[in-house]
Amino acid sequence: MKKRIAVLGSTGSVGLSTLDVVARFPGALHCQALSAHSNVEALLRQIRLFRPACVSVCDYTAASALRKKTGRSTKVFAGKEGMLEMLTDPRIDEVVVAISGSDALLPLLKAVDTGKDVVLANKESLAMAGELVMKRARRNNVAIKPVDSEQSAIWQCLHGQQSNRLKHLYLTASGGPFRGFSQKKLARISLADALRHPRWKMGKKITIDSATLMNKGLEVIEAMHLFGVDASRIKVVVHPEAIIHSMVEFIDGVVMAQLSETDMRIPIQYALTYPDRAVNAGLQGIDFTSIGAFHFEKPDMRSFPCLRLAYAAATEGGTAPCVLNAANEVAVETFMKEKISFIKIADIVERVLAKHRVRAALSLAQVFAADNWARQEAMRLLS
Amino acid sequence: MKKRIAVLGSTGSVGLSTLDVVARFPGALHCQALSAHSNVEALLRQIRLFRPACVSVCDYTAASALRKKTGRSTKVFAGKEGMLEMLTDPRIDEVVVAISGSDALLPLLKAVDTGKDVVLANKESLAMAGELVMKRARRNNVAIKPVDSEQSAIWQCLHGQQSNRLKHLYLTASGGPFRGFSQKKLARISLADALRHPRWKMGKKITIDSATLMNKGLEVIEAMHLFGVDASRIKVVVHPEAIIHSMVEFIDGVVMAQLSETDMRIPIQYALTYPDRAVNAGLQGIDFTSIGAFHFEKPDMRSFPCLRLAYAAATEGGTAPCVLNAANEVAVETFMKEKISFIKIADIVERVLAKHRVRAALSLAQVFAADNWARQEAMRLLS
Repeated sequence: MKKRIAVLGSTGSVGLSTLDVVARFPGALHCQALSAHSNVEALLRQIRLFRPACVSVCDYTAASALRKKTGRSTKVFAGKEGMLEMLTDPRIDEVVVAISGSDALLPLLKAVDTGKDVVLANKESLAMAGELVMKRARRNNVAIKPVDSEQSAIWQCLHGQQSNRLKHLYLTASGGPFRGFSQKKLARISLADALRHPRWKMGKKITIDSATLMNKGLEVIEAMHLFGVDASRIKVVVHPEAIIHSMVEFIDGVVMAQLSETDMRIPIQYALTYPDRAVNAGLQGIDFTSIGAFHFEKPDMRSFPCLRLAYAAATEGGTAPCVLNAANEVAVETFMKEKISFIKIADIVERVLAKHRVRAALSLAQVFAADNWARQEAMRLLS
Repeated sequence: MKKRIAVLGSTGSVGLSTLDVVARFPGALHCQALSAHSNVEALLRQIRLFRPACVSVCDYTAASALRKKTGRSTKVFAGKEGMLEMLTDPRIDEVVVAISGSDALLPLLKAVDTGKDVVLANKESLAMAGELVMKRARRNNVAIKPVDSEQSAIWQCLHGQQSNRLKHLYLTASGGPFRGFSQKKLARISLADALRHPRWKMGKKITIDSATLMNKGLEVIEAMHLFGVDASRIKVVVHPEAIIHSMVEFIDGVVMAQLSETDMRIPIQYALTYPDRAVNAGLQGIDFTSIGAFHFEKPDMRSFPCLRLAYAAATEGGTAPCVLNAANEVAVETFMKEKISFIKIADIVERVLAKHRVRAALSLAQVFAADNWARQEAMRLLS
């Protein structure tokens, strides 16, 4: 039996890599459903190649345009509601959530609530509502399989081990393109500068988050939920070569590390073929002797306060990570419109967090109330 | 139920570390039997601490001396034969083979033949008769659990994975104390120089083997047998910091690595508590940022021909690794008597191998014939 998967965000960076992987395992994987925001051209090409039974398009105009171009064999859903409806299809076995930002939360919960295993390539959803998502996943006996390279690395290091044998997690960080920069130098960063990430080809939001180290901060929160550990047991280590994707220290002093080339198809394939591993041709392999050295240093939380703020929010718990994430999304969007400076992103997040009264984040209502409040507060500070 | 273990070579370096581990798990591990070469004083102290039901002493005079000093509660066996007899005791669950050199082969086989799991800290036995040992272990459904830090690392990386998903093994090597030396400089190495290993406190034979890189060569052969891979799929990488103890590359391009402080008690404990991990207090943990960098380079097979010779013997198979090992033992013994130079060790091994006609090594008779021939040939070249 083929595993029938839905790929949400199929025209984005992780979505494209996911389809690359699916194409390599025609006997094992089938694209049952696809979902995109508005890129009709790209989605049409994917429909022709993968012949999904259904697709959804968030943008209503784009959905109408698509309907005119697809045959009857592909059902087209429209809008965010349409995507959620599509996910109830019992012919979907597994949902790849490759939507960026907080928009991923509702589809993630829909997949979990309808008992589908999830391949998760989105950290904002766990930052917003990690407790809620993990609780429902446990209740529905649904697996949340990470594809973020760091979380996948930790997951692989923990394979076959009892989770209470874990002592620390080491999240590695490339340090971003501005590693070593002073605050003064960071103040002069342009949007174009920030969009050049040294290691991974990724979407824009995550590229900016990588530059501020907020991405690593969100990963701390994500790891906390995925692996059930406190933030105090998660250490961030800067490793500029980005070959070690993360590590686990066990109670006996042993550290297991996962390494690979920087190619998202590797963790995506692992999540889709788990618990097995399958051949991944086209890879060079790691050439240790030509790389010559792996370096390690402490993250600079003075120049990159986003990481410090994320740790604080993770430690606080409740609605704090949700507020951190929402304020960050607003600030990053504003930076991407070139309306604020690079260092203003952390400043906005810090000020919103400072004004927030932390509450429990156990229901969607609580989560969205905190999220909305934080967005409004951030926008007020930015106006 | 406590696991009742026999520690062979209990007064040696790995033996002492093993007893350290046993002492920390009084509820789970019991020393049922001890065995030493001739160090009666040390053995007496161990008997008082661990109260084994039986002990054996290889040296007959030492065994007699011991008998006069122990009470009736400890049975004393004498000689190599005595040790083998002791191992037939059905009250022994697991045998730690921490004897150095080829003397370990017969006790290892006795443990396997009497259906006892083995914790193996000896590589010469597998170099001599790897095929034979592994075949008998499979037949008797006996586990061979390595404690060599490199083999333990690979074993840990493979945990929970199907062995046919393995693509390459990376054996890391510190490079020994003479890394970077030219052949000319190596010719002037004294015994005292060679006995100073930069990373591990070990027995003398293995310290010399580490300096010539024959130790790494023997590990290539050992890994071949333990993990069922050809020598062509085993790569040696010099990693002077010796924090990564070895790595496995899987077919999907992922490399898993095992890291720890350089403390033999870590892999010993893992082998004794396997498949679980237990708390190992007294450890500092790896401080990545103060280490700062892990370096990697190719091994220098010109200055250290022993590694090249071992690869050649491993590829050849049959009696070749046995001959390599025997010639090396004779050459190292002679070097330890300060009768030959450091670089002469490889020279002797190379000349003995060149004269050898490789045969199958499927019976003990074939193994010992090759071993004897190689020793005589080496001695003839040395006389």
